[in-house]
Amino acid sequence: MTSDERFLSLARELGCDFSGEIRIGGNYVPVAQDGRQLFVSGQIPRVGDRVLHVGTAGADIGLDEAKRAAAICAMRGLALLQRRAGSLEAIDSILRITVFVRSAPDFTQQSEVADGASDAIARVLGPRGAHSRTSVGVLQLPKGAVTEVDLIAGLGDA
Amino acid sequence: MTSDERFLSLARELGCDFSGEIRIGGNYVPVAQDGRQLFVSGQIPRVGDRVLHVGTAGADIGLDEAKRAAAICAMRGLALLQRRAGSLEAIDSILRITVFVRSAPDFTQQSEVADGASDAIARVLGPRGAHSRTSVGVLQLPKGAVTEVDLIAGLGDA
Amino acid sequence: MTSDERFLSLARELGCDFSGEIRIGGNYVPVAQDGRQLFVSGQIPRVGDRVLHVGTAGADIGLDEAKRAAAICAMRGLALLQRRAGSLEAIDSILRITVFVRSAPDFTQQSEVADGASDAIARVLGPRGAHSRTSVGVLQLPKGAVTEVDLIAGLGDA
Repeated sequence: MTSDERFLSLARELGCDFSGEIRIGGNYVPVAQDGRQLFVSGQIPRVGDRVLHVGTAGADIGLDEAKRAAAICAMRGLALLQRRAGSLEAIDSILRITVFVRSAPDFTQQSEVADGASDAIARVLGPRGAHSRTSVGVLQLPKGAVTEVDLIAGLGDA
Repeated sequence: MTSDERFLSLARELGCDFSGEIRIGGNYVPVAQDGRQLFVSGQIPRVGDRVLHVGTAGADIGLDEAKRAAAICAMRGLALLQRRAGSLEAIDSILRITVFVRSAPDFTQQSEVADGASDAIARVLGPRGAHSRTSVGVLQLPKGAVTEVDLIAGLGDA
Repeated sequence: MTSDERFLSLARELGCDFSGEIRIGGNYVPVAQDGRQLFVSGQIPRVGDRVLHVGTAGADIGLDEAKRAAAICAMRGLALLQRRAGSLEAIDSILRITVFVRSAPDFTQQSEVADGASDAIARVLGPRGAHSRTSVGVLQLPKGAVTEVDLIAGLGDA
């Protein structure tokens, strides 16, 4: 299976359709490029017009839901890379993801939440998806989303 | 108009003079370079010795003031790039900005605050300023500032 | 003295042994590489199996302890770079560090905490360690650690 096929398969499992417009919220771009590096803007778990997971990890949102939210953020990032590069097969590496988790004061499982994003990337890209990662617990996120994920990717040689 | 002229014009509108020393707080550098990439340290809305906007978005600081704070942070970043590169005309791209917004627990307009930074960059650099962005709501920032912005820029080919 | 010798000397002063396995928490890698750039995952002050500094800066953790925690995070990052590159002498630059400080609501000395990381890097790498920096106060961090530090480094030309 190609990475594009694996992307579609995981999107189906998540029950999310990433084929529509991927909206971003302000005066910036979804993906900026410098040579072979692609910088993807921070993604919240929005599908179409709706933010799917609004709330606070460790309070009204449990670990499994927060992991799912992180997976959807990562899938949005991959969808943006797919559009930019034509195919996810052209993505050679994921250099860095940062996972921000809106957290209750005593919630310390940010790494476990971030695994939702890391697992999605590993499943879609395989070994090419091995990435460095930073997970942080924050007070708030845009639209009240429970997670936000940004990433830096590397294109293969042309 | 050149980007340097547009920078001066926006600085005047903001009522801020960025021509003096741009102080940073510790044992690091304002700008680190790798090839054509310039990494600018996180900037708070400090002009000279004074941090202009101290407080919490959604509590004692409203959206308009927080946007202005984000604009000043971005202008400090641009001022540092200008000094490093000699002119803002030499800046080819802004690859990534991260906007940290000190937020009240129920404040979710981090993207709207970040527009203050994005709009300033767009006005000064025009289409070359199109950037990826991550906006996050945090509990505190250095000196109690309401916003902090860091960025990664690309130099044009020599 | 080489950077590797200075690393060992600072590790001894900190009373920490970084020669064992450096564990990371999830489905990702400690260091991702793109050409000459090395992206190091967010490090908490863990030595072996134990997170040494758990708590909140400005509440149960004072400035000196938080600085020490930031230094240990940076040393872990340097240890990972050392293993990856064979020697810290091969590390040409530190382009960016981001220092997340778990903070009490009124604690605003994130820059001072981050100096703990910056000072460690300066001591080990000397002038090659001059880096850009972003310091942020957050609500929580993985395992309840008081600090987390990630970094982007540059390899020298082969």
